[in-house]
Amino acid sequence: MGTRRPTIGVFDSGFGGLTVLKALLELIPEADYIYFGDTARLPYGSKSVETVGRYAVEAAHYLEAHGAEVLVIACNTATALALDRITAAAHVPVVGVVEPGAASAAAVSKNKKVVVIGTEATVSSHAYRRALEARGVEAREKACPLLVPLVEEGWVEHAVTEEVARIYLAEAFGDGFHDADALVLGCTHYPLLKPLLHRVAPSHVSIVDSAESTARVVSEQLQKLLPPAGFQEERRALPRIKFFATDSVEKFRRLGQRFLGHAVDDVQHVDLKE
Amino acid sequence: MGTRRPTIGVFDSGFGGLTVLKALLELIPEADYIYFGDTARLPYGSKSVETVGRYAVEAAHYLEAHGAEVLVIACNTATALALDRITAAAHVPVVGVVEPGAASAAAVSKNKKVVVIGTEATVSSHAYRRALEARGVEAREKACPLLVPLVEEGWVEHAVTEEVARIYLAEAFGDGFHDADALVLGCTHYPLLKPLLHRVAPSHVSIVDSAESTARVVSEQLQKLLPPAGFQEERRALPRIKFFATDSVEKFRRLGQRFLGHAVDDVQHVDLKE
Repeated sequence: MGTRRPTIGVFDSGFGGLTVLKALLELIPEADYIYFGDTARLPYGSKSVETVGRYAVEAAHYLEAHGAEVLVIACNTATALALDRITAAAHVPVVGVVEPGAASAAAVSKNKKVVVIGTEATVSSHAYRRALEARGVEAREKACPLLVPLVEEGWVEHAVTEEVARIYLAEAFGDGFHDADALVLGCTHYPLLKPLLHRVAPSHVSIVDSAESTARVVSEQLQKLLPPAGFQEERRALPRIKFFATDSVEKFRRLGQRFLGHAVDDVQHVDLKE
Repeated sequence: MGTRRPTIGVFDSGFGGLTVLKALLELIPEADYIYFGDTARLPYGSKSVETVGRYAVEAAHYLEAHGAEVLVIACNTATALALDRITAAAHVPVVGVVEPGAASAAAVSKNKKVVVIGTEATVSSHAYRRALEARGVEAREKACPLLVPLVEEGWVEHAVTEEVARIYLAEAFGDGFHDADALVLGCTHYPLLKPLLHRVAPSHVSIVDSAESTARVVSEQLQKLLPPAGFQEERRALPRIKFFATDSVEKFRRLGQRFLGHAVDDVQHVDLKE
């Protein structure tokens, strides 16, 4: 009986999805990974459903063509705006970050009242609110468009970022939501702000990072695809990770390292128009 | 002798170029305008020279195909990274914002020492430094990646924006550049921050907005193209302005108004891939 390593395709508009890849690597080291960052067209967070849908389907096709057996949409905006469209276009299982994040938040919230922060597009889609309400949880969604550029500027522990977060969270937890007891990081950039957000958020609030819950759902998907025996046999081998970026490879290496927590080596430039 | 209104094509990655269109409308009301905002792929400021060049040439072709007789690259990043490429690809005169801005700064600076603020890509290209040094002016360029998202958040008079500007300008005017006496707004978003920057910049500093100087250069180009008689005859008619955007038309209308200072009506969606 031959055993083989499954290949997981991870997609994001840029770098944020690397926080999801990091969680995947920790939970599923027995897989190989291909990561697609659509850095030439980022950010998705301020764009329309039509545009994001078209971009995301192109990326999904690219990853499938390169051997992905499961697709992880490691971008809240793409998940919120285009998961159905991607799932319909793909021939392999597709996992987004919204449902796993909402499930974790519902499990963690005692008051069944949750605040979700994300990009403008994610918030406008109300994907989180729907997913949480389906679980009996009341949700308030708050767009925080400055947090992504602040993270990309590297100001993850900066007084300005703290002030911006304070303004956003005061609005989110104000006015009838003082008793919300979970804060969902509805953007894959935000995990880098976790220590700062812990300081700024009301003390009774748990922070829910959908990266870990998404990794668990992916692991379950893999169990369905592969014989458990073959799966375990290669457990100790190191994962191979290939990166594809639509903009500068050099910049991907530099910024990518910050999100992944270790070196980003094997990066290839992709031009989707060719 | 028939007279006719010239058509000026204005291009930007998004909304910022509307500050240039505004200056053009004031100086050249006898022309018609078509404005192309590549909002599906903005921002250009963090992208590579290859990517920006490809996008900008596509936009230039689009404007020419729609009748533009002069092209204004109302985007500092596209000018800095791709003016040569656009000029080579176009069949009509092309005017960028860097040379006119540098010329104004050189004229205004008594100490021949200037600070230029802009996006990461504009600064990395050193297009302003070259243009200023060619005029005998010493230049320091400073990337201010947070200012665009702050303007788009609408925080043009916000304490956070003032603090961010203070940090950026302290670095730019520090360390041997205390005697720089002009500040070039090397990004078409920044004119919205002019009152705030006036407060934050050292008091001896003049602020140079390249929009007006660019409009003057465009006006000179038109004199060459058209008989002055025909040009003046229609002077009192109102300009027709058509807008094309690659992302949501509704969002273009909403944000566009903020930059142009009046309603943005005739917006059409464009898909460059079709």
